[in-house]
Amino acid sequence: MSFYNDDIKILDKKDYPKKESKPSKVYESIKDLFDKLDLKDGITVSSHHHLRNGDAVLNMMMLELQRRGIKDITLVASSLFPVHKELIPLLEDGTITNIITSYISGDLAKAISKGKLKGKILMQSHGGRARSIIDKNVVIDYAFIAAPSCDPMGNISGVNGEASCGSMGYAIADAIYAKKKIAITDTIVAYPNYPRDITEDYVDYILKVDSIGDKNGIVSGTTKVTKDPVGLKIAKDTLKVMKASGLLKDGFSYQSGAGGISLAVTDFLRDYMIKENIKGSFASGGITGYLTDMLEEGLFTSLYDVQCFDLKAIESIKKNANHLRMSGSEYGNPEVSAVVDNLDVVILGATEIDLDFNVNVITGADGVLMGGSGGHQDTAAGAKMSIIVSKLFSSRLPVIKNRVDVIATPGTTIDVLVTERGIAVNPLRQDLIEKFKENDLNVMTIQELKAIADNFMGEPKEIKKKDRIIGYSEYRDGSILDEIHEV
Amino acid sequence: MSFYNDDIKILDKKDYPKKESKPSKVYESIKDLFDKLDLKDGITVSSHHHLRNGDAVLNMMMLELQRRGIKDITLVASSLFPVHKELIPLLEDGTITNIITSYISGDLAKAISKGKLKGKILMQSHGGRARSIIDKNVVIDYAFIAAPSCDPMGNISGVNGEASCGSMGYAIADAIYAKKKIAITDTIVAYPNYPRDITEDYVDYILKVDSIGDKNGIVSGTTKVTKDPVGLKIAKDTLKVMKASGLLKDGFSYQSGAGGISLAVTDFLRDYMIKENIKGSFASGGITGYLTDMLEEGLFTSLYDVQCFDLKAIESIKKNANHLRMSGSEYGNPEVSAVVDNLDVVILGATEIDLDFNVNVITGADGVLMGGSGGHQDTAAGAKMSIIVSKLFSSRLPVIKNRVDVIATPGTTIDVLVTERGIAVNPLRQDLIEKFKENDLNVMTIQELKAIADNFMGEPKEIKKKDRIIGYSEYRDGSILDEIHEV
Repeated sequence: MSFYNDDIKILDKKDYPKKESKPSKVYESIKDLFDKLDLKDGITVSSHHHLRNGDAVLNMMMLELQRRGIKDITLVASSLFPVHKELIPLLEDGTITNIITSYISGDLAKAISKGKLKGKILMQSHGGRARSIIDKNVVIDYAFIAAPSCDPMGNISGVNGEASCGSMGYAIADAIYAKKKIAITDTIVAYPNYPRDITEDYVDYILKVDSIGDKNGIVSGTTKVTKDPVGLKIAKDTLKVMKASGLLKDGFSYQSGAGGISLAVTDFLRDYMIKENIKGSFASGGITGYLTDMLEEGLFTSLYDVQCFDLKAIESIKKNANHLRMSGSEYGNPEVSAVVDNLDVVILGATEIDLDFNVNVITGADGVLMGGSGGHQDTAAGAKMSIIVSKLFSSRLPVIKNRVDVIATPGTTIDVLVTERGIAVNPLRQDLIEKFKENDLNVMTIQELKAIADNFMGEPKEIKKKDRIIGYSEYRDGSILDEIHEV
Repeated sequence: MSFYNDDIKILDKKDYPKKESKPSKVYESIKDLFDKLDLKDGITVSSHHHLRNGDAVLNMMMLELQRRGIKDITLVASSLFPVHKELIPLLEDGTITNIITSYISGDLAKAISKGKLKGKILMQSHGGRARSIIDKNVVIDYAFIAAPSCDPMGNISGVNGEASCGSMGYAIADAIYAKKKIAITDTIVAYPNYPRDITEDYVDYILKVDSIGDKNGIVSGTTKVTKDPVGLKIAKDTLKVMKASGLLKDGFSYQSGAGGISLAVTDFLRDYMIKENIKGSFASGGITGYLTDMLEEGLFTSLYDVQCFDLKAIESIKKNANHLRMSGSEYGNPEVSAVVDNLDVVILGATEIDLDFNVNVITGADGVLMGGSGGHQDTAAGAKMSIIVSKLFSSRLPVIKNRVDVIATPGTTIDVLVTERGIAVNPLRQDLIEKFKENDLNVMTIQELKAIADNFMGEPKEIKKKDRIIGYSEYRDGSILDEIHEV
């Protein structure tokens, strides 16, 4: 500590503080605000994706940076959606050089796969993103925080406002650790705004705009239970796997993705918990109305919500005290104890899985970017049992490969693969294999499942990729799992 | 960013993560826990004071450090109370060398004034404490966080548990920025514990003890409205000052200390707001039942609570969604926009005030440590009008001096002094002088008030102090306002 040095100087009375009110944080024009900022080539800016495909903020901010001729920007976007295709010209003209994200889909993803990004793309998990910001591996100069509502001092609430998004979990690390934080809002409310997702001490500037986006864009097409009988069979077998594991009992904790099969698993789980009178502990993740129903029915004591996947979830987080907000770090940061570490079961998807159970959710069968880990890595590592639910074929292409195109989640953290033709268990989990066999589940090796598929379709063809590396798949702890190639 | 270096290494499959559950954070014995820590001479440890004079945790932790022979510790305690007199032998034997705090009273304070601390004591404001931790001027090795309830992963709630304390605002900076965080609790509850004051990602270890203290110790003797007619006159005149200032209207924001005169002001304010149908915005600070009543009556739209001053406040924060928690940084950090910056009026006490309106709340008339800034500096700087309420004499000693013993709050941030004989306004606030005269308030110069007092008692005597500097009074921005001398 320096306070007990002998050369301490006592403040001169002429230098005593003046009683002045601080300047207003609120700007009505992006031009006036950006004139105030120290914008220069090579800066790093960030955004959160809670408005998902309804987000209007990131494009607005980046286009203004382009207008000002700022080049060589690193964009740290928690996720990127089809709506962000407007950024493609900014890759071409060198406004954006590097991208760090946890999920990317749509034309922007395709453009990057075709080599339009001059630098690299780094694909992180949600927990890995928080870790990298907290550890200052990723240093953000300006965080652009889309704020559904904000008071004139910067208290942000995700549940109030026209474009309410619910939890703002992925923006929390940015709000704490970015050098400057800008709230962009279409709804300025009286002080103090609450409930607060981000408090005024973390907000430097507020930009008032006409609209931050459309909350209907939050719901993607996939957040419905599948009606496909093959998908339903997989979901039913997944429930059997959960039962056989011994984990499905009072105090059970659960997460699933928002894909059609995963949601069907949740639906079957609900029926089963009601029938057997099982009271779970928590469910976590991106939260859907399926889970808020289960909360309100008392099947879970609480929900951990890092982002709301539909409008029902937003309504629930507004009214239910046991529908808890969590930050990206609290969700999945590998350097702390996180919610994922308390999970019993997670249900996940895959675009590809290999014989070592390594999973690809980053690129499609053509090698083109179309997704990302999101919480995949984090929950697989944390949950007592991670289950991949997948048909053996997706659009006539086999899901099991000798080697996945891009490793998103290491196979050492994937425990079970449930397909319509059988259940493969990671050989690392002999305990599960025994339990499943005792319960007469159709356990096969992943090699056997692959042989069935290859019998139908033949050995899958290699993707034609170029030598140029356009980016990397990062593990949540910061190590690099794989290269991503230009296609 | 380093991720696009050419020498990037792809993780070898043999180094893929193992799926292992993390070790338990929970320890049942302080000995077992401390054996795990890297304890050595010269470490810095911290504590919060939400259990005030009922706290049993800090003594317990420090005595174990003493037992282990750890020397030269810097103790960063948000406040210290009479109950902490057990630490006196630790000053003498060199276990504790330096203390950083915002308030200190009781025998420990007296021992320090008598020179028993080998190093120095730094007196900070509550906001200054948060700033110093966030800026890493003060780097905490171990934060000892008394946790009224905690689940096995470290989610801490201040409102559940036998020794509930309500808001845990002063522990937040420690939880985020200390190198290691230890929750000490007598109440371990099922996961996940909520509402959360501190989340599991900020807790490294949990120590289960029999009792963290007595919540009845939260209430100090002073949190009652004064019955003294002189005090009541001052309170009435203070309400007149508030009215005359023009600030007392719809949207009004307010803070007062928990002293008897301050609470009487709040009581008169309540009657006036009801009578005039004034709807305030927020009240802030340490929160008492007087303010929660006003919240529930609709006189304020919300409360900002950094610590609960009585049990009624704890009940209120448990049930009222508009009774908001705030951290010490959100409350008063000078480097961000803080709640204090939004205050219209703050009512404060003083042990001494000088002709430049500089205030001492750190030492008594005998020069002995007996208090501290707490939020005094922060609210005085932030509020549109800061009012000192004080009798002209305290225990027969005059409150107005030529020079206060220790400057805690610079006079440039103090606007009005209300005494039983007249109202003095800082000459920097000619606007207030005009308004008060227009409203026929008994405005005098502070020199005139001093002359009245000196007429009764004679010029106050100088305190006999030794040359040795035992510590400093720090301003919230980190500059040093004054020396504190051995007595």
